[in-house]
Amino acid sequence: MSTLTISEPHPNGPEQFDAATFAAYALSSPEKLAAVLDHSLVKPDATRTRVLELCREAAEYRFACATVNPCWVSLATAALAGTGIPVGVVLGFPLGANLPASRKVEAAEVLKLGVHDIDMVLNIGLLKSGLAADYDAVRQDIRDVVEQAHDHGAIVKVVLETCLLTFEEKLRGAELAIGAGADFLQTSTGFSTGGATTDDLTLLRSTYGNRVGVKASGGIRSLADASAMLKAGASRIGASASVRIVSELASR
Amino acid sequence: MSTLTISEPHPNGPEQFDAATFAAYALSSPEKLAAVLDHSLVKPDATRTRVLELCREAAEYRFACATVNPCWVSLATAALAGTGIPVGVVLGFPLGANLPASRKVEAAEVLKLGVHDIDMVLNIGLLKSGLAADYDAVRQDIRDVVEQAHDHGAIVKVVLETCLLTFEEKLRGAELAIGAGADFLQTSTGFSTGGATTDDLTLLRSTYGNRVGVKASGGIRSLADASAMLKAGASRIGASASVRIVSELASR
Repeated sequence: MSTLTISEPHPNGPEQFDAATFAAYALSSPEKLAAVLDHSLVKPDATRTRVLELCREAAEYRFACATVNPCWVSLATAALAGTGIPVGVVLGFPLGANLPASRKVEAAEVLKLGVHDIDMVLNIGLLKSGLAADYDAVRQDIRDVVEQAHDHGAIVKVVLETCLLTFEEKLRGAELAIGAGADFLQTSTGFSTGGATTDDLTLLRSTYGNRVGVKASGGIRSLADASAMLKAGASRIGASASVRIVSELASR
Repeated sequence: MSTLTISEPHPNGPEQFDAATFAAYALSSPEKLAAVLDHSLVKPDATRTRVLELCREAAEYRFACATVNPCWVSLATAALAGTGIPVGVVLGFPLGANLPASRKVEAAEVLKLGVHDIDMVLNIGLLKSGLAADYDAVRQDIRDVVEQAHDHGAIVKVVLETCLLTFEEKLRGAELAIGAGADFLQTSTGFSTGGATTDDLTLLRSTYGNRVGVKASGGIRSLADASAMLKAGASRIGASASVRIVSELASR
């Protein structure tokens, strides 16, 4: 086992993320809240009709993006063309246990189709296997996607699936993702034993400050949930209940 | 919508599968039961140590195969080399919503690594979208994998994820899989809202008889479960509790 090196937090330095100010801003209007919400539909039984509905809602509410499974990317990019709303995709979802070769191909294909946000699950089993070579493989798997994405002006959020990780694994996974150039750390797939927690967001933000975005996802179903996540340090939120969440704020 | 054409059952013809005889044979000894069990470990947090343990158990109990995620195939084929126990892999698991291009690449890679059993999830969202072109796409996605597999002497089991399908969708999915050359119909991923049911096995067997193998998977945790599935028409069973299941029979 190699030693875990964690970046020192900078409690008062320029790298600190001001969650309270960010949350107050994001919660100041339905429009501002929509702009930090990834409107997501990644259920396996989502039909063409439902994907088109997701895109229509994303354009109407001006969400941060509309996130779909790879097979629906071309439909979503066509539906959102000219709206200025980007398309997001999940990669290696939700197990993170694909071959790097096929993940690279899938990333290349969805980028060609015009995806702007890639949410990829890191290889959880490799991270937990604990050899230095495993960590290198986890990082390289992410880097292969990040490099392609950045070449296309796209961004990558790395899903840690925190509910399956120990405290040390959360930080090591985050370090590997940041080392590979990830734009965001994301808590959860929503398909495992748990979703985003305020504790995990606090941990990631207090450790990494402004160095990386933090996306809370999994189990966020109400304005109260979203609000708690923002106050704990999230700068992006993934939800399928996004319309309900902004509507709750609008009806106040 | 195109019309659903279902093969006529042959209640007394040569195509009928004799579930009672097959079940009695498979349940006649722990060794015979092991030979119809796919010993599976597809959890995202499976480590190298656990994958090696799965392979050791597969070799010791002589299971039908050891099924792993794509990233562990090379480890499993190395671990099982010379034992005669094949390696199985899950493809597009568990959402079935990948791009055909990346699925083809992943199939090619795992076949090169020596996989014998491919369990692929069909594209559920496309199946449910209901246009003739969608059905063609579902079939072609499967055919692309089946052709490569058969070229390598490997077999393909197509997971329908029956818990998400209507009665008509189950039969249509099965028809598309059979039309694409699938070797087995498989009920479930074990990651969705439900697993194998005796009703679904009876439906698939009574409709398709001997034309295709039927694999029951998802929620099979005991000898009683396995026995019920075999009696309802399964010719293969997928389980992570395989050791427990054969041990139950051995201790009788």
